[in-house]
Amino acid sequence: MTTASKIYLDYNATAPIRPEAADAVICALGVGGNPSSVHAAGRMARAAVERARGQVARLVGVKDGSVTFTSGGTEANALAIASAIAAGARRPVVGLTEHASALENAMAPGFMVEGWPVLQSGLADLDWLETRLKAWEPGHGRPFVVVSLANSETGVIQPIAQIAALVRAADGWLHVDAVQAAGKIPVDFTALGADTLSLSGHKLGGPHGTGALVAGTRSTLTRQLHGGGQERGRRSGTENVSGIAGFGAAAAAAQRDLDAFADHAAWRDAAQAAIEDIDGVQVFGLAAPRLPSVLSFAAEDFESERQVIAMDLEGVMVSAGAACSSGKVSASPVLAAMGYGPLAANTLRVSGGWATTPEDWTRFAEVWSTIHDRFRARRRASAA
Amino acid sequence: MTTASKIYLDYNATAPIRPEAADAVICALGVGGNPSSVHAAGRMARAAVERARGQVARLVGVKDGSVTFTSGGTEANALAIASAIAAGARRPVVGLTEHASALENAMAPGFMVEGWPVLQSGLADLDWLETRLKAWEPGHGRPFVVVSLANSETGVIQPIAQIAALVRAADGWLHVDAVQAAGKIPVDFTALGADTLSLSGHKLGGPHGTGALVAGTRSTLTRQLHGGGQERGRRSGTENVSGIAGFGAAAAAAQRDLDAFADHAAWRDAAQAAIEDIDGVQVFGLAAPRLPSVLSFAAEDFESERQVIAMDLEGVMVSAGAACSSGKVSASPVLAAMGYGPLAANTLRVSGGWATTPEDWTRFAEVWSTIHDRFRARRRASAA
Repeated sequence: MTTASKIYLDYNATAPIRPEAADAVICALGVGGNPSSVHAAGRMARAAVERARGQVARLVGVKDGSVTFTSGGTEANALAIASAIAAGARRPVVGLTEHASALENAMAPGFMVEGWPVLQSGLADLDWLETRLKAWEPGHGRPFVVVSLANSETGVIQPIAQIAALVRAADGWLHVDAVQAAGKIPVDFTALGADTLSLSGHKLGGPHGTGALVAGTRSTLTRQLHGGGQERGRRSGTENVSGIAGFGAAAAAAQRDLDAFADHAAWRDAAQAAIEDIDGVQVFGLAAPRLPSVLSFAAEDFESERQVIAMDLEGVMVSAGAACSSGKVSASPVLAAMGYGPLAANTLRVSGGWATTPEDWTRFAEVWSTIHDRFRARRRASAA
Repeated sequence: MTTASKIYLDYNATAPIRPEAADAVICALGVGGNPSSVHAAGRMARAAVERARGQVARLVGVKDGSVTFTSGGTEANALAIASAIAAGARRPVVGLTEHASALENAMAPGFMVEGWPVLQSGLADLDWLETRLKAWEPGHGRPFVVVSLANSETGVIQPIAQIAALVRAADGWLHVDAVQAAGKIPVDFTALGADTLSLSGHKLGGPHGTGALVAGTRSTLTRQLHGGGQERGRRSGTENVSGIAGFGAAAAAAQRDLDAFADHAAWRDAAQAAIEDIDGVQVFGLAAPRLPSVLSFAAEDFESERQVIAMDLEGVMVSAGAACSSGKVSASPVLAAMGYGPLAANTLRVSGGWATTPEDWTRFAEVWSTIHDRFRARRRASAA
């Protein structure tokens, strides 16, 4: 089986650049100028940055001044966490299915981090959180809770407004990682009730190296990079003008396409239907709301790495979970936290995005069924 | 007086993008893929990052593995400083003419920072450093010294090898900010004797939002951004693939053009000669080696902001000193540290770069003489 063209279904790792974003990057590269310079080139660079700030702000329904640009989602999470700790948090509560950039930045300052369990559905355990916050000891400082709006691996969408109500009742700080959700489902910062919210440019079709931290009026950001005092003193360093311009254009395009994005669910569901009845296949997150573009599942005994490589050889790019720096595929801590430990080494994450077509999902299901059949046949042969 | 086209002489704030760098950015934007993904798109993104790492490494004469990409020079300085503090530095010694990103990141952890004086030439006071390091108290931890290879405002080039010998004798850590020097004069990390060295992409014709920290074998970097473990665990966050590719291409182009860059000194010197004998004009850094592309001077009573705006109206873009986040022009701390306090509010920084021509410098001198004459005439008229 050969494929005419490659199929990319790994948008949760990174999205291909949107044409609007590429155009904006190229245009801004031509501007030159440092946004802090008072001369003509500087003012043009400043205008490009501020235009993008408005585009990103509109995507999540906030005023422009609530948006602080960073070098990506990791830095946005790190800035939120450091700011909460500067504001008195001493025992961060972090969901056990959170991305490494949340978990590890929360652990870095040396305080004990509390792992907040999830149910087998992938949904955060609200009862646990309510009980925990009611018994909060003053010695642990201000409650600080970190959760993703949509999980990077399963696409499970958390009931943020309910979580926010619990955190608010405890006078806490809720940081929402919206890196995977933004541009795929509506994200309204105020309706969510978050104190801070992180975004990543490249996950929604902008360039790599851009992100933002959105902060509401109840939170004060504490600068981590010092120097020129850019971003209203919240983040020093010359602004990534072309990257920010591309991020803004991608945010605007994503907002424009948001209604249509809901259609992806039907395409995903059709692919899911084609494989979920296969013996030994387990789909994750079915009992929870999910991003329309994500399918997370495991096949008994079929190791993630073998699946990813076999799919790649057939021209279909998917992943085993979060893109890991080592380039190695390891068992998924997300699935382990959901109680699927024995399957955590056999999982596949299939994730579409802005350029995905129904045919991509159809092709994925065909190719995966083929490589799975081949795997089973080989197993039977070697067992015989 | 009107100008046919704008003249940009503010390269020390930011350089226009080199065509090679723009091409590399555009090419990498088309790659898509997360460098940590194992599939085809991921491997292509990884290749783009590693190719650029080699290009940046060659510019400063190190092995690829010595280069850690960051979001810019500010983050590179911050990472070096945090790493030195993690390694036991308790009283950073920072040159008084250093950039705010060095001074302020050094002050952030809360230890006392020692300001290292400069002579009126702009050269660091080596006697002071030698005396200071000989009397170093063990309670101040490992000596940690921060200095720029070339000053951002005056272009003065420090005798880094001599400084390194003093720091080495005290078993210290020398961090060199080479953001302004790299791509303009040869930078050989080993010959300099630095422990860490910071670079910025946009100062040498790459895109904004990229930088690197070069680290030798005597220094251990301590990660500040946690998560996916990218950059060999030294800096988490998805790599800025297109930005890094552009940075690499710009570094390669800068290295190719390095010999020819020395010619800029004659163009700068001609412009300097045209204005230095004007009554009340003081050129800075004449008694020291300088970057060939930088002219820093002041004109008595003629405020920096008035100069910058008047020049901009004539189509010549220059600055008063470091690009300041506020967009406001304030008195130069660099000149104040050099003992030129009364002139620090009247200074102009003129800085060329890769696309600068001799005609740009000629035109600058003509325009500046004109606005200066106009200023003097107005002063005489109002005094009369």
